[in-house]
Formats: sequence, C-alpha cells, structure tokens
Amino acid sequence: MSWEFDHVTLGQRVRFGTGKVAENVAAEVALFDARRVLLVAAEAEDEPARRATADIDVAARCADVRPHVPVDNAHRAREQAVETGADLLLSVGGGSTTGLAKAIALTSGLPIVAVPTTYAGSEATNVWGLTEHARKTTGSDDRVLPATVVYDAELTLSLPVELSVTSGCNALAHCVDSMWAPRTDPIDQALAVEGIRALAAGLRAVGQDPAGVDGRERMLYGAYLAAVAFASAGSGLHHKICHVLGGAYDLPHAATHTAVLPYVLAFNGPHATDAAMRIATAFGGAADADGAVAGLLALYDELGASHALREAGLAEDVIAEAAGLVLPVVPAGNPRPVSEADLTALLTAAWAGRDPTSLRP
Amino acid sequence: MSWEFDHVTLGQRVRFGTGKVAENVAAEVALFDARRVLLVAAEAEDEPARRATADIDVAARCADVRPHVPVDNAHRAREQAVETGADLLLSVGGGSTTGLAKAIALTSGLPIVAVPTTYAGSEATNVWGLTEHARKTTGSDDRVLPATVVYDAELTLSLPVELSVTSGCNALAHCVDSMWAPRTDPIDQALAVEGIRALAAGLRAVGQDPAGVDGRERMLYGAYLAAVAFASAGSGLHHKICHVLGGAYDLPHAATHTAVLPYVLAFNGPHATDAAMRIATAFGGAADADGAVAGLLALYDELGASHALREAGLAEDVIAEAAGLVLPVVPAGNPRPVSEADLTALLTAAWAGRDPTSLRP
Repeated sequence: MSWEFDHVTLGQRVRFGTGKVAENVAAEVALFDARRVLLVAAEAEDEPARRATADIDVAARCADVRPHVPVDNAHRAREQAVETGADLLLSVGGGSTTGLAKAIALTSGLPIVAVPTTYAGSEATNVWGLTEHARKTTGSDDRVLPATVVYDAELTLSLPVELSVTSGCNALAHCVDSMWAPRTDPIDQALAVEGIRALAAGLRAVGQDPAGVDGRERMLYGAYLAAVAFASAGSGLHHKICHVLGGAYDLPHAATHTAVLPYVLAFNGPHATDAAMRIATAFGGAADADGAVAGLLALYDELGASHALREAGLAEDVIAEAAGLVLPVVPAGNPRPVSEADLTALLTAAWAGRDPTSLRP
Repeated sequence: MSWEFDHVTLGQRVRFGTGKVAENVAAEVALFDARRVLLVAAEAEDEPARRATADIDVAARCADVRPHVPVDNAHRAREQAVETGADLLLSVGGGSTTGLAKAIALTSGLPIVAVPTTYAGSEATNVWGLTEHARKTTGSDDRVLPATVVYDAELTLSLPVELSVTSGCNALAHCVDSMWAPRTDPIDQALAVEGIRALAAGLRAVGQDPAGVDGRERMLYGAYLAAVAFASAGSGLHHKICHVLGGAYDLPHAATHTAVLPYVLAFNGPHATDAAMRIATAFGGAADADGAVAGLLALYDELGASHALREAGLAEDVIAEAAGLVLPVVPAGNPRPVSEADLTALLTAAWAGRDPTSLRP
C-alpha cells in the first residue's frame, strides 16, 4: 500500500437499472434541458438505440461508427453535430461508439450521456483516441468524460456468451493489473478488488445462465469499476506484455489478455503479497499468494477459457524476440524486478499453458 | 446488493502525503493560479496552518471559527473574502473550519483547498451546514465541495489518542451504517468496506503507537472513505438512533455512536448477511454474521472503548421514551423490520453493555 499518492476522482453520474434505459435516458435529457439530441449509434446498434430513445426526441443520428475512431470519421461527426445544432450527445453502443461521441465532445464541449452495450468501459474514463494513417493518438481531457452513464443489462443480453467471457476477462485484467500499475493508489486498488469480485461472480453467472440478467448486471458493474481503476492506475506489466504481443504479432486482443493474465499474476503475486491476498479473497478463494492464481484458474476452468498463448496464435520461435521487445517497456515500479530471462520464462510457460505457479521466485 | 441505483461520484483531487502539506498546498495554489489566498484556520490551528502555508503567500486569515457555523459568523467571513479579493479558500483544521470555508464558497463560488486535521470527513462531501437561533440548516451544493483535499498525517499527531479513538469509531459508524442506509448502492458499500478495513487497522496502530504516522495515515484515508460513502448513502438506523439520543438527552456524540454501533450491527446483521460478512472480513475476522460483531468488539477491547450506553450518560428510565422517539424515524428500507419493542430491547441491551448477539432474531 502506497501512502503517498495523488488521486483524481472524476465526477460522473451513474444510473443503473435493468429494463430502465428509456426512462433513465429521458430523465437525463430533461436534466440537461436538451432540445437537440444527436444520437451516436452504429447500424448494428439499432435495437439498443431504439430502446434507449423510446421516450425522447432525437434530432439526428450519426451511424457511421468505425473501430479506433478514424480522424476523417470524427470530422464528419463533428460537422453533423454543428449542422444539427446538437446540445447533447447520446451514445448507444460499444467502445467505438463511445469513442466517436468523445471525439465530438473533445472539440465541441457537448455533454455526453453514454449507454454502453458491452464491457469495454470507455464510458467511465476521460480518455479519447483518434486514428490517422494507422497511427493511434490518445489523450485525456475531462470534456470527453460522459456526464452520465446509463447501464441497462438487458442491452447486453445479445452479446454472445463467448464474447462476454473474453470481454469480461479483459476487464478482469484491467483490475488485476491496476493492483500494481505505475500510478496505482489505495483508492484504485479498492475499486479494482471490488471489480474482480463483481466480474468473477458475473462471469460465473453468465456462463451458467446466459439469458439471465443477474450475471450481466454484475459484469457491467465490474467493467465500470475496472475502467475507473485502470484509467487512474495506468498500464502495469500485464498490459505492457499484451500491448507488445498484439502490436508485433497481431494476436487477438481478448485471447491474449486472457492467456497472459495468470502468468503475470503468478510472477508478481509473491512480491505483492497484500495485493495477491486481496485478489484471492475477491475470487472467493484462500487468502494467500497462490490463492489468487488458483482462483483465476478455477474461474477459467469453469468458463472453458484457455491460458495457452499458443492457442491465441503465438509462434514458439518468437518468444525470445518478444521478451526483448517487452523488456524496455516494463514499468519501473513493478513489484518484482524483471529480467529478459524472466520474460522469456513467463512467455514460455504461457505459450505452453503450463502451471503458472512454476514462475514463483 | 441493490442492482437498481443512481450514484453520483463527486469530482475531487486528493493529495495524500505525510510531511508534504506545504509542497502539496503550494502545488494547488499554482494549479489554480491563485494570487489572493484566504486562509481559514482557528487560533487553535496555528501550528498546522503555519505548516500548510510555509511555501505560499496568504492574503488574509479568517480565524473566527465556531462550532456548527453560526450564520453571523458566516456573514463576517464572506465579507472578509470580498474585502480580501480572495480567489482561493484554504481551510486548515477540523470539521468546523472546513464548514466555515464551505459557507463562504456557498455564496461566492470560490474554490476550496481543504487540509483536514481530524477525522471529521467534511472535506470529502458537498454538504454544508449553518446554525441560527440554535437551529441547524443543512443542504448540499457542489460549490461547497473542496476542489482538492490535502492529507498530511503529521498534522493529526497532536490529536490525543482518546480523541483519535472516538473520532475513528465515529467514522467507523459512518461506514457500517452506509452498508444499509436508504440510498446505499454497491459503490457506496465497496467504499465503506474499504473504509472499515483502513479504520480498523488504523485504530489498532494508533492504539499501539500513538506517535507513529502509519495508523494516522490509515485513519485519515478511512475517514475520507467513510465520508464519501456516508454522504452518498445517507443515514441508516444507527445514525437515526444516535441523532435522537443526542438531541433528546444531550449525550456526547462520539461516545453515543461508539456504544450503539455493535447493537445495530448485531440487530441488522442477520438480515443483511452479505453486508455482515463483508464487514466481518474487513475487520479481519470470520466471514459470517456473528463475525462482524465479534470483529468490532475485539477492536473495542483492544482500544478500551466502552459499548455501554449508561457510561455515555443515558438514564435507564428514558429507554422506553427513546424507543418511541426513534420509531417514526426508522428508515423504511432497513434490512430488518423494526418494532418499538425491538428498539426497547436494543437500547436496553446497549444501556447495560450486554452481549449484542442477544439481539439476534
């Protein structure tokens, strides 16, 4: 626990209610006294968009949503907001949709009411991203933080179980890595632990009853906390490794995160015993360093999730190279010192899906 | 756990660092580009005020701080802010000092940087209070929420251990009651549980080593969380009982809260099993309903804190009357239905300091 910290809590309202999206969106439109709502929702998000706007008038809709918010796309959406005379942005959709609304808010200062339909978490942060010529620029600005988030678990019921699981494991990785990330503090850690609790319970429930809302509610809540904690704490060792693997070898995002997480947890846990014990307790297991890994693996078993990096598509012969690429970006404050040999051992164990506790010091 | 909720997170920066108050205050003054700082600090707060302002210029000081912020007092302080041409309010002190700065901010909109020296928690809320003709008016307004809180545990070292204990138990009561208060939600509960964890550890450490900063840091952090959770969740059964006892029989605030808490916990716990288990775990004890009460009583034993209401000055023959006064203000959503007979039994057990688990259903 670090007793010297700066923590910025971002002011935001959360309205959480299953089956209440229309009512909660209408309440927000009234609260802002908005007359010209610009709806941001992709074609594929027709159904949740229809539900979210059932009780309000929409002045215009921007449906041209693309991954990673291309700059040209953002320009067109900004022009549409001006032409519409929009006084409120209502985003209904996943991370790319929220991202496009943020791009409009960044230059216009218009308030956003965000209705997420996935576990991406962008709705809870002041981070924006734009892509031009395949290069992504990101930044943080309080103007892009949605003023209000409206969560309705019914909107996530159409997410397939498999996608819910990988998306949930990705949120879980945000929480675990937040425990030792560079800017972490006790508040981030408390939110991350609560996020693990909610995501573990939610993932189990969705696995057992995909059509039930209980698990979806917990996952939405957990994904929200994961985003809040991660945005404040920054990227730890896990995210640095996954970023390198994703960028250099074009591995699938969620599967990579899912595979790597137990190994980083096993590697760092013995040098971050308080964090490891809290993670273990949040998984509902024994409160010791090995309990954290055991809790995560038990959850994977239940969900049928793989922690073999070769199944995510990593070739064995690039492991040494990958270790060399990760080394320079290892966070300085990682709880356990990290050598290139450590990274090779970690990636080798992860590649094979070997018992993560073999990485104990 | 209630899955339908509205939660407002208040935006605020926290700078937490022992021995760093001067540096952190100077950083805030620079951030606000403030030229005319009005220091609000009572005469008794000379020493912490001197430390907090070591690296900045102060345009004027308002030292006329009185309990419960009398209206006349607030008027004079507001006039002083205008005469000074103040562009920033810096409060250094306990709850009354923060309260006076809030009274100035309420009408002027000036930003507050708050440096707390006790565990009152007012610095983390948007709640203000003013007193006129012995009647207290309270309200909430985001303008009175301090923009930044600077915590430095060294400033609390002069608080006597006994006062630290009662003040800490009061913060603990904020956390416990937040678990089932009328507007509670999962976020409030997560913050409250973390607050209990921090306060229990902090109280133990202060009891063992009053001159050490470790326990003081944990208590400041716990008191901050307690205030955030309680301001959002509202008053539960515990605070309703204590409010009646304090008002009708002029009992001492902290001693009353300390005595009543185990009985409300024992009474509500079996009907709020998830909350009780989380409280028990936060106290470091067995995760069951009785574990919460056992954990709290073990802490009291260690601290030499009394849970006999007669020792706080309650007369035995007013118990029936007190139960009648509490009944109409029992929160509608209390996890366990509350009859007048229940309240009489609760107050009788508390009066005698009897085993709280006798209140099990």
